[in-house]
Amino acid sequence: MSIITLITDFGLEDTYVGIMKGVILNINPHVQIVDLTHKIRPQSIKQASFLLKTAYSFFPKGTIHVAVVDPGVGSKRRPLLVKTPSYFFIAPDNGVLELIYQTEPVEVFHLNNPKYFLPKISFTFHGRDVFAPIAGYLSLGKRCEEMGKKIYDFQRLEWPLPKVKDYVLKGEVIYIDHFGNLISNISRQKFQEFVKNYGFSIKIKNVVLKTIASHYLAVPPKEILAIWGSSEHLEIAQSMGSAKETLKANIGEKIEIKKEAK
Amino acid sequence: MSIITLITDFGLEDTYVGIMKGVILNINPHVQIVDLTHKIRPQSIKQASFLLKTAYSFFPKGTIHVAVVDPGVGSKRRPLLVKTPSYFFIAPDNGVLELIYQTEPVEVFHLNNPKYFLPKISFTFHGRDVFAPIAGYLSLGKRCEEMGKKIYDFQRLEWPLPKVKDYVLKGEVIYIDHFGNLISNISRQKFQEFVKNYGFSIKIKNVVLKTIASHYLAVPPKEILAIWGSSEHLEIAQSMGSAKETLKANIGEKIEIKKEAK
Amino acid sequence: MSIITLITDFGLEDTYVGIMKGVILNINPHVQIVDLTHKIRPQSIKQASFLLKTAYSFFPKGTIHVAVVDPGVGSKRRPLLVKTPSYFFIAPDNGVLELIYQTEPVEVFHLNNPKYFLPKISFTFHGRDVFAPIAGYLSLGKRCEEMGKKIYDFQRLEWPLPKVKDYVLKGEVIYIDHFGNLISNISRQKFQEFVKNYGFSIKIKNVVLKTIASHYLAVPPKEILAIWGSSEHLEIAQSMGSAKETLKANIGEKIEIKKEAK
Repeated sequence: MSIITLITDFGLEDTYVGIMKGVILNINPHVQIVDLTHKIRPQSIKQASFLLKTAYSFFPKGTIHVAVVDPGVGSKRRPLLVKTPSYFFIAPDNGVLELIYQTEPVEVFHLNNPKYFLPKISFTFHGRDVFAPIAGYLSLGKRCEEMGKKIYDFQRLEWPLPKVKDYVLKGEVIYIDHFGNLISNISRQKFQEFVKNYGFSIKIKNVVLKTIASHYLAVPPKEILAIWGSSEHLEIAQSMGSAKETLKANIGEKIEIKKEAK
Repeated sequence: MSIITLITDFGLEDTYVGIMKGVILNINPHVQIVDLTHKIRPQSIKQASFLLKTAYSFFPKGTIHVAVVDPGVGSKRRPLLVKTPSYFFIAPDNGVLELIYQTEPVEVFHLNNPKYFLPKISFTFHGRDVFAPIAGYLSLGKRCEEMGKKIYDFQRLEWPLPKVKDYVLKGEVIYIDHFGNLISNISRQKFQEFVKNYGFSIKIKNVVLKTIASHYLAVPPKEILAIWGSSEHLEIAQSMGSAKETLKANIGEKIEIKKEAK
Repeated sequence: MSIITLITDFGLEDTYVGIMKGVILNINPHVQIVDLTHKIRPQSIKQASFLLKTAYSFFPKGTIHVAVVDPGVGSKRRPLLVKTPSYFFIAPDNGVLELIYQTEPVEVFHLNNPKYFLPKISFTFHGRDVFAPIAGYLSLGKRCEEMGKKIYDFQRLEWPLPKVKDYVLKGEVIYIDHFGNLISNISRQKFQEFVKNYGFSIKIKNVVLKTIASHYLAVPPKEILAIWGSSEHLEIAQSMGSAKETLKANIGEKIEIKKEAK
């Protein structure tokens, strides 16, 4: 049984997501469709790229991931099909697949064969007219080469990476989840390379933390803590609360790591 | 594989939708259930009617669409099963299927055979007790005639249509989507019949537009534009923004089209 | 076809729910996954317990219900698998299954066999690393005894029950749904045992009601009413409105029943 996942900024108030599912099922009624999320902030390509990265690899080999955050719909931006050793990705060529490009070897196809689109293509809803039907046909076993033409000049996205400057590892908050956990761009690997055998301090706003908690309740209720989050990034959280609200922190908030005597 | 879609005002906080799915799967565990949306404004029959119209025809032939916006639950209002050449619709008799009646030839059945309801029927949740089991049995191949009695006096809804008065085509906003796009009741066909070979101006609040954009980014960021939306209605949008917020427009907002010299 | 339901406080903005589905489908791609709700208030074990109770029994025999509201994730709290005559439940040992324990005969297993977890277990996301894979393997037919060890000291939750004091039946609001209906802990059975052949008055805030409405529209629009809700609890509602907003009532709000001359 084929699996198709959807990640969009369409929200859940409208029928845009339901319509995409209808189009897919009309082509392949036996496919299993899974929502990653549809609550990407409207037109936030970066947020979608990050969230897709957290999720794609937990699905079975052969899963087709469809990412539609598409402010340029109807313009000349190209629709893409991306093949990696284990997965397929379908998305507009606007950088929403940046973190896939950084993580996986990719073959990128410009979807230019209208035979696999809906017969009539609007200028406002390619999720329905282009991306959903491509996903449907792909789940039936159509080959990438039949649906598009291989390209190499697909669009990349600038991605904020942590940097070492004046002996300080400087990162930032790149995502805030439903619980108000502040997820940084500092990976566990990067952190450990920097800190090595030293102690450390983690500074965000006026809070300085000198340990990494083993779990959320390892500190008393309402205390701020640092923890390795589920995607192995450094995360600032609050025990039984929302770090976002308590610290009034937003995406882009700076996080600084210093080495300290142990 | 049978497909059942659900459109309700139940929201996603409670388990009402999940319970309906349980009831359906208890009757037919092999059915595929798709959410159209559950975020219809509580008791907004018109909104549900519009959104169902945008979506139903993208699904495979034979799909069963269940619409539960039902302020009169438990009263004498009748539960209906509606058959069109390609689809089935299950809903209370309160006008929520109005735009289906306007679009498709219909056979309408009053569901009066309690054999296909849950054994015990509450006065507050017919989504669970009546509509879900009917959908389940229908997906197993039960005939409409076994489940209900054909009727002709089903309830219609007054629907706001655009009108020509003093050489002006007067329409209104009938739906606002998640992106803040203002969707009017002026179809492309109606617009073109009115404008014919003339130029035109489109007025909403203090904004006057003289062209229809080909896509959202065809105008500079933050500019208001008119566009043919994905359901072929005239739509007022904002490039990289929300027309709803910028124009402070609501459902019912007037839109006027005038002919102009070309 | 096996069915797995999910009830969590993960919300729909992130990919946590999607990731759990990926993990399940990676183990058993043929399972049908149903969302009960993911909008439990963060860390509200009681709310999840109540909502799971309203829904679980409408699903086919053999359904696997997964409840992840888990503030203690990563601590020593045990992961559980609970078997009842018709269903399975998978949840942390924190009382979230309290109302199942009160309703069904249960066998409780402490999940202590890491063979059925993901290879690497985080300290922050056991929904993904423990509960989802267990659900997947269980849906393939693995036996409870292979996955865990029977225990008897599982954690219970204090649950607010209505009490009779000074000839008054005192209950409270235990849940408020999407429509603003106030659902009390007074069951129809309890009410009828107390009132017997008398009349009654129902008091909430400054409102006194002397009848139970047969359906929401049985009283004029905007009037407050009492009704037997869909889970057979006494519910305070407003005709064509939200009792929650009109009465400014919250969870814990007192409801008093007095016997009256008929």
